[in-house]
Amino acid sequence: MTDFTASLAAFAAGPITTTLQTRVVTSLSVLDWIAVGRAGVDEPVSRTLRELVLGEGGAEQANLFGGGAAPLRGAALVNGTVSHALDYDDTHFAHIGHPSVAVLPAALAASEWDDRILVDFLEAALVGMETSIRIGLWLGRDHYQAGFHQTATAGAFGAAVAAGRILGFDASRMHKVLGLTATRAAGLKAQFGTMGKPYNAGLASSAGVEAALLIAAGFDPNAVALEGPYGFGATHKGQSDVVASLEGLGEEWFFESVSHKFHACCHGLHAALEAARDLDIAEPEVAEIKIKTHPRWMTVCNQMSPTTGLGAKFSYRTVIAMQALGYDTALPDSYSEKTCADPRLISLRDRVTVEADDTLSETQAHLTLLRRDGAKREVTHDLLAPMTLSDREDRVRGKANKLIRAEDADAIWSMLRTGGRARDLAALLAG
Amino acid sequence: MTDFTASLAAFAAGPITTTLQTRVVTSLSVLDWIAVGRAGVDEPVSRTLRELVLGEGGAEQANLFGGGAAPLRGAALVNGTVSHALDYDDTHFAHIGHPSVAVLPAALAASEWDDRILVDFLEAALVGMETSIRIGLWLGRDHYQAGFHQTATAGAFGAAVAAGRILGFDASRMHKVLGLTATRAAGLKAQFGTMGKPYNAGLASSAGVEAALLIAAGFDPNAVALEGPYGFGATHKGQSDVVASLEGLGEEWFFESVSHKFHACCHGLHAALEAARDLDIAEPEVAEIKIKTHPRWMTVCNQMSPTTGLGAKFSYRTVIAMQALGYDTALPDSYSEKTCADPRLISLRDRVTVEADDTLSETQAHLTLLRRDGAKREVTHDLLAPMTLSDREDRVRGKANKLIRAEDADAIWSMLRTGGRARDLAALLAG
Repeated sequence: MTDFTASLAAFAAGPITTTLQTRVVTSLSVLDWIAVGRAGVDEPVSRTLRELVLGEGGAEQANLFGGGAAPLRGAALVNGTVSHALDYDDTHFAHIGHPSVAVLPAALAASEWDDRILVDFLEAALVGMETSIRIGLWLGRDHYQAGFHQTATAGAFGAAVAAGRILGFDASRMHKVLGLTATRAAGLKAQFGTMGKPYNAGLASSAGVEAALLIAAGFDPNAVALEGPYGFGATHKGQSDVVASLEGLGEEWFFESVSHKFHACCHGLHAALEAARDLDIAEPEVAEIKIKTHPRWMTVCNQMSPTTGLGAKFSYRTVIAMQALGYDTALPDSYSEKTCADPRLISLRDRVTVEADDTLSETQAHLTLLRRDGAKREVTHDLLAPMTLSDREDRVRGKANKLIRAEDADAIWSMLRTGGRARDLAALLAG
Repeated sequence: MTDFTASLAAFAAGPITTTLQTRVVTSLSVLDWIAVGRAGVDEPVSRTLRELVLGEGGAEQANLFGGGAAPLRGAALVNGTVSHALDYDDTHFAHIGHPSVAVLPAALAASEWDDRILVDFLEAALVGMETSIRIGLWLGRDHYQAGFHQTATAGAFGAAVAAGRILGFDASRMHKVLGLTATRAAGLKAQFGTMGKPYNAGLASSAGVEAALLIAAGFDPNAVALEGPYGFGATHKGQSDVVASLEGLGEEWFFESVSHKFHACCHGLHAALEAARDLDIAEPEVAEIKIKTHPRWMTVCNQMSPTTGLGAKFSYRTVIAMQALGYDTALPDSYSEKTCADPRLISLRDRVTVEADDTLSETQAHLTLLRRDGAKREVTHDLLAPMTLSDREDRVRGKANKLIRAEDADAIWSMLRTGGRARDLAALLAG
């Protein structure tokens, strides 16, 4: 039988081989993470966590989103929460979670504190995110369906490994840090729709940092606590398909298929928005729009005539009308009461219909445009369809340019690609 | 259907009625907790956690075992871990956990910080411990058998409630703090036998404090996250017998039946040691001793001829011989290589036999003494047999007097019974 934890530990501590693709996607996730984190600092949950941690004071070991610094554990707690506050960060569909928000705060805080260069940070970030994805796969859909929030549960292990890599762990310490994290990885989907969801990401990041610091200090846990009849997988309804979750580990990067969000709304709406983008729909030509989507989304994000910004974020009809009218769906502020009350939007929205189609996957949408001139165009978009690297770069950088000052986004991108010190990057979390 | 969380929240926020018994047992648990915590400060796990938290610095909000002070979350983490390091703290058999080590660090840190009087602290401690016991019962034996460590999982909720009570929570905030804690209560039995076991207690205490501070600051979680198909109980294999776990809540204190440990060894040995104490066995008269015990313990604590202190703590033959020879089984230092090598001990130990008896419960032991003069005496001791309040007081105070300076133990007891400020009690954690 393959030893799951030992395989992950050997991978996490060993040399790695990357491609241009891996490196660029990692850097894009970091840029995206900083942009959505800076955009999320004024959310109530972000303020609450910042105040808690800044109120404690202590050594200024790592920078916080929104300014200030804190000890590593506190910085990871704040930055994980803040960067997930808008729920606008990257997603990995196989892992069923958001890799960046748990792992990057841990990797960056440790790198900054240890005064590492960005190459080290990016490598630790990649290894940590890949580990969280592999553990997310190992836990599987049953774990998620039972009620666990993979972003947090699998994420804690990724955070621990990322921090451990910065701290120079060998495979034995990596094994231990995974075992120790097993006793505290947590997070329930019951918190979805509340401040508890972003908090789960902060908890995971902080848990990983704490576990790594303790192992570095000589803490001796049961290192075999993921597997076995009383391990994390068995106790937390993991499916535990060891073979599938380790497939190609060290050669193939599951992380590369991470998705970035280009619209500041429910992920269920994205395929339809991308389809509308594929057709380049603009309002004057629209007679009618018909959307087909996976049945699952009908109860999640098919509000018919919302009147609030939050409602708009869960409404096919509204977001498609917004896009056709030139509202920027990438900006959180576009979703507002004022937008919902726009008479042009209401008129267009009422010409959009939505129906379930169980031949579509959860990442697909089919869109039919009936034009005023009688022409009919249609397209199916799948969020899993590969993007070229340059398209992806354009779009992530374009998103970052909108969420934060364009010169900051450019500076961050330049630093990530050309190199520098982690603490200089971390200084840019302040905004 | 009874709303479990709402019932607990109303209890936790409301006025309570106690008896002399409740108050004395609570104070005894506090004294016992301080004594075992102070005795545990030099354990490796204690040093590691103290260094982590003291290294972070920050506001000196609450005192630590071993000296120094830290922010509340850090103090709870350290004090929970340190006080469980020797595994010598109180136990509640129905809850299947150790109520003090998760709850008292949270209650005391919050009380000290808020400059409360000891009456407030003791009340919050009692309400928190009762809550953890009720939740432990609700989670039940299935939760424990599956691999969860109730001390930590149920304990986190108790810590949250205790801190919340000091922070003046009404029932609505108590409900919220229980809901928030549901997303982070954790702890696996897989860590038993390692530093991870005491760490679980520290995690629980710190998690409760953090949840309470966040709710006090306006954090808005899903407050209904214990119950329901995706709540903590369902996701964590809880049995969830609401009726039994709420029985008599507010009128009857399940906490009163807490057990204090009077021997610094495996709990499985205690009934036999108490039986030997009942017979007042002293070595010169012993021809032979026969022990009968529940079959479960045969694989746990029946090492035949251990040579180390740790081994002695899991050996019927050794501890019974130690007691008959006048070694003080209440002192952790009595269990040593030197003791194991004592020729008098080896000679006596070889006249002790142990056998399983499935008519006995896990808390019972039967002991037969064959004297050199031919007389035979026998007794069955049950750890659940009620003790008079004055016996219990004598024994807990006697234990504390041995573990820490007697004048300190007396001062703590006097303060707990006559009143004072929480911060004066907390100052005595330093030792």
